[in-house]
Amino acid sequence: VETVLSSRTKTVVISPDRPFVIIGERINPTGRKKLGAEMAAGDFSRVKTDAVTQVEAGAHVLDVNAGVPGEDEPALLVAAVRAVMEVTDVPICLDSSVIAALEAALPVCPGKTLVNSVTGEDESLERVLPLIKKYNATVIGIANDETGISMDPEVRLAVARKIVHRAQDHGIPPEDVVIDPLCMTVGADHTAGRVLLETIKLIRRELGVNMSIGASNVSFGLPNRPLLNAALLPMAILAGLTAAITNPVEPEIRRAIRAADLLMGHDEYAARWITAYRKEKK
Amino acid sequence: VETVLSSRTKTVVISPDRPFVIIGERINPTGRKKLGAEMAAGDFSRVKTDAVTQVEAGAHVLDVNAGVPGEDEPALLVAAVRAVMEVTDVPICLDSSVIAALEAALPVCPGKTLVNSVTGEDESLERVLPLIKKYNATVIGIANDETGISMDPEVRLAVARKIVHRAQDHGIPPEDVVIDPLCMTVGADHTAGRVLLETIKLIRRELGVNMSIGASNVSFGLPNRPLLNAALLPMAILAGLTAAITNPVEPEIRRAIRAADLLMGHDEYAARWITAYRKEKK
Repeated sequence: VETVLSSRTKTVVISPDRPFVIIGERINPTGRKKLGAEMAAGDFSRVKTDAVTQVEAGAHVLDVNAGVPGEDEPALLVAAVRAVMEVTDVPICLDSSVIAALEAALPVCPGKTLVNSVTGEDESLERVLPLIKKYNATVIGIANDETGISMDPEVRLAVARKIVHRAQDHGIPPEDVVIDPLCMTVGADHTAGRVLLETIKLIRRELGVNMSIGASNVSFGLPNRPLLNAALLPMAILAGLTAAITNPVEPEIRRAIRAADLLMGHDEYAARWITAYRKEKK
Repeated sequence: VETVLSSRTKTVVISPDRPFVIIGERINPTGRKKLGAEMAAGDFSRVKTDAVTQVEAGAHVLDVNAGVPGEDEPALLVAAVRAVMEVTDVPICLDSSVIAALEAALPVCPGKTLVNSVTGEDESLERVLPLIKKYNATVIGIANDETGISMDPEVRLAVARKIVHRAQDHGIPPEDVVIDPLCMTVGADHTAGRVLLETIKLIRRELGVNMSIGASNVSFGLPNRPLLNAALLPMAILAGLTAAITNPVEPEIRRAIRAADLLMGHDEYAARWITAYRKEKK
């Protein structure tokens, strides 16, 4: 299964047979008060810097979130996307659960955009999927529904299947659905990593669709976060994960992904490994 | 399957249901001229330091190799083992292909010792397995035979099966055989990581025995070796690897293993992760 994303000039293909796809997570005012305040004031300089820095560090796609409490999210999202497109040319991942924001920003993005996200809840599916179809976009489907987040991989698989089927009902093919198998923190539940990895294996085997996680969640509340995130990614990639919303600016994370690509046989002659080493040594 | 190793006072259990077992690789004069010269001169101070340092860094078992060209390996191995036992009390992994050296050192090790190694070659099996039985030891069985090292996981599985069966013929149960699925460098063949991981999954599923690799091999000839080794270990652990001969003194490596234990659900309340962080911060 190949999920194709595109910008005006670039195409990114998410597939188990290709190098892992990094979706840069930084352009998100959640937990970044300063960034949120600047965005609300119409200052997108930090957004632009974050866009360039992440692409230079290896992001193939940029997640753009403009959810600042009390602000006009549709207008902010459009402005943020325009700012990002001024300085980079990678496909965009529109990160919003506000339909009006997605409706406003989707026409601004050229090419094939990723929407983050829909859940398995009927209301979410029926609101988001028509937009995905209308704009020929792709969507991240989060494997939870009205009953919440299950710690049973089979239940998450069932929700993922529901999302894929419902998308098909709306005329969206399975390759345009990227499932998020739900990365929870191991700080709260020490089985969370195992449950995630089992869920990824199950979805890979049973549905065969591409998958992405918000990788940083795994270490929430724990020390040495980048190291834990950096260990999770190679494991998740082996299990069948094909993309992640993460921070490539963290050296541990981008190096772990590069290493995993090499160990999965996706880096002929170790050429990217060696090139990256030389570049970072400078 | 539980492989039980022991020293005079300590027991180490290798099992997929338990934290990963680290076998410290440093006490090995191969490629360490200075160490070899000192050992040949009867100076085991560095051996002792390496023993203590590795155990402090998290080694559960210590590999001891005394192969110095032109020297009396049985005598050196016995002396090295005695030196290690003077300063630490973890189970020993006797690393030699010289039968006389194993024959001399096995009686010196109390408890249940790991022997590194036997191969799938008939000559090796018929020379080593009787010793394993005689001393009630355990053995690492390397998945290559007279035909060399195959890049086909099914062939490596067949060799592993031969070793396990031949051990049974000698009265050695499968839990006393730890298979080495063969970690080759991705610098020479970019499929080497994938082949290794496939082999581990196959052996886990088909034979269910414990497995150990010489993890550092994967990065031979490449830059940034510890980072590549550190990415391999979590992937291999997810695939089913239960031990590795590696260097816990490298921070990237011991942290990657700790992270993988946590992500596999083998670190309740993330207690070991947090404790190690606090200890290393000091």
